[in-house]
Amino acid sequence: MTSEAKESPRERLLEAAAALSYQEGVGVGIQALCSTAGVSKRSLYQLFDSKDELLAASLERGAVAYKAWLLPAESDDGSPRERILHVFDRMEIESGTPDFQGCRYLTVQIELKNPTHPASRVARGVKQDLSAFFRAEVERGGASNPELLARQLMLVFDGASARAGIGVDDLTGLVSPTVSALLDAEGVH
Amino acid sequence: MTSEAKESPRERLLEAAAALSYQEGVGVGIQALCSTAGVSKRSLYQLFDSKDELLAASLERGAVAYKAWLLPAESDDGSPRERILHVFDRMEIESGTPDFQGCRYLTVQIELKNPTHPASRVARGVKQDLSAFFRAEVERGGASNPELLARQLMLVFDGASARAGIGVDDLTGLVSPTVSALLDAEGVH
Repeated sequence: MTSEAKESPRERLLEAAAALSYQEGVGVGIQALCSTAGVSKRSLYQLFDSKDELLAASLERGAVAYKAWLLPAESDDGSPRERILHVFDRMEIESGTPDFQGCRYLTVQIELKNPTHPASRVARGVKQDLSAFFRAEVERGGASNPELLARQLMLVFDGASARAGIGVDDLTGLVSPTVSALLDAEGVH
Repeated sequence: MTSEAKESPRERLLEAAAALSYQEGVGVGIQALCSTAGVSKRSLYQLFDSKDELLAASLERGAVAYKAWLLPAESDDGSPRERILHVFDRMEIESGTPDFQGCRYLTVQIELKNPTHPASRVARGVKQDLSAFFRAEVERGGASNPELLARQLMLVFDGASARAGIGVDDLTGLVSPTVSALLDAEGVH
C-alpha cells in the first residue's frame, strides 16, 4: 500500500494534455487524451467544457512553476544584466533536455493559429509576464531604449527556443553572446 | 473561352496543400485538401504516395520563387551589410501581409515535430540555403566570427517571423536595429 493519494481524473487529464499536446501537437485527439489519462470521454466532458478548455487549463497549471523556475527569485540581488542572463541560462538548460520541442508557450500559439483560442490566451499571458520582467530589468539597467531592448530579448528567447526545438541549432555559444551584444548596444552593463 | 490552360489536378492539389497547411496547420485533412482542389481521393493517391509527400512537394514547389524573392539578386552589388538587410526588409514586408502566420519553413518544422518527415526535410533545406547566404555574406564582410554571426541572423529571422506570425509583435522598428547591432558587434560595417 502506498501512502500517496492517487491523482484525480482531473489531474491525470491535465497531465496527459500537457504531455501529448507538447509531444504531438495541439491536434492530439480526445481519444488519445482519455486513454493516456485512463478517463472516459464522458468524464472528460464532465470536468472540462471542451478539449480547448482542457488544453488551456493544462498550460495554466504549469505556468506558475515554469515562471518560478525561469525567472530569478525576487530576493536575488544580481544586476539587471545578471538577472536577464539567468533567464537565458535557464532557457538553454531546458533546450538541452531530450524531448525539447521549443517553448510550449510559443509553439502552442504557432500551432493554434488563433489568438482567441483559450490556450493561446494563456500562452500569451505567460509570455507577457516574461516580457514585463525584461522590460523592468532593462529599465533598471538604464537601457537607452527599454521598449526596444525588451522586444529584442523576447525575439532572441523565442528564436533560440524555436531553432533548438526543431533541432537545427544546439545553442552552444550562441545565446549569451547574442544577448550580451544587444545589452551592450543599449548600454546595460 | 479562355486561352489559359486549366491547371492540372496535380497543380491544384499542390496549391491546396500549400494554402491549407499554412492557414490551418499540417494536420489539415485529406478530405479538405481534395475538396479545395476539386480532386478525388483516388486521384490524390495516384499522384502522390501520401499526404506527407504532397505536403513536401507543395513546399518544394514554392521554394525557388520564395528564395528568389527573399534574397538579393546575384548581380546586386550592394555591400554584405546591405545584402543582409535586404533579406530582413523582405521578411518584414512578408510579415505585414494580412494572412501572415510566420515563415512557413519554420512553422512546418515546429508543427511536424519530426525532422525525418519529408516536409521537414524540404523546409530545413530552404533554411539551410538562407543560412549559407548569411554565412557567405558575413565572411565577405569580415565578421570576426562568421559562424556565430550567421547563426545569430538565423535566430533573429526565425524569432521575428515567429513573433509576427502569432501577432504579438508587428516588428516596427525592431528588426533592422537588432540586425545592425549584431553586425556592428562583429565588425561588419
